[in-house]
Amino acid sequence: MPKRTVLDPQGQTIHHALSGLGYGAITDVRQGKFFVLNLDGWSRDEAQKQLEKISKEVLTNPVIEEYRFEIVD
Amino acid sequence: MPKRTVLDPQGQTIHHALSGLGYGAITDVRQGKFFVLNLDGWSRDEAQKQLEKISKEVLTNPVIEEYRFEIVD
Repeated sequence: MPKRTVLDPQGQTIHHALSGLGYGAITDVRQGKFFVLNLDGWSRDEAQKQLEKISKEVLTNPVIEEYRFEIVD
Repeated sequence: MPKRTVLDPQGQTIHHALSGLGYGAITDVRQGKFFVLNLDGWSRDEAQKQLEKISKEVLTNPVIEEYRFEIVD
């Protein structure tokens, strides 16, 4: 998702829309994306290493986005 | 995220790109989006009820998308 210091116009638009619908209790909205990858053939350690690399080099723009991932059996 | 029965061209494109980079262990990719909402002034029960409504009526298209949410203190 966008780093805290990066503007998030989509989140702001949704926040504004929700305020307009009367949801005043919502004080901030941030939007991000996620990916579900099916893996086959990697050990947990190998998956950890490869996903770190894929997250950094393929799935995110590390200048403006932060990421985290979890491995689920 | 898109329902299982709905095509996910973004996920397919990323899957294809990862295969091209040699990540053959990745057998499927699905892309979805998420929202982080800051709440102020709702009880947990109230938040549960309102978020169910917001998820269904504002944040997703229930024809093609499924959703889940969690409330974190």
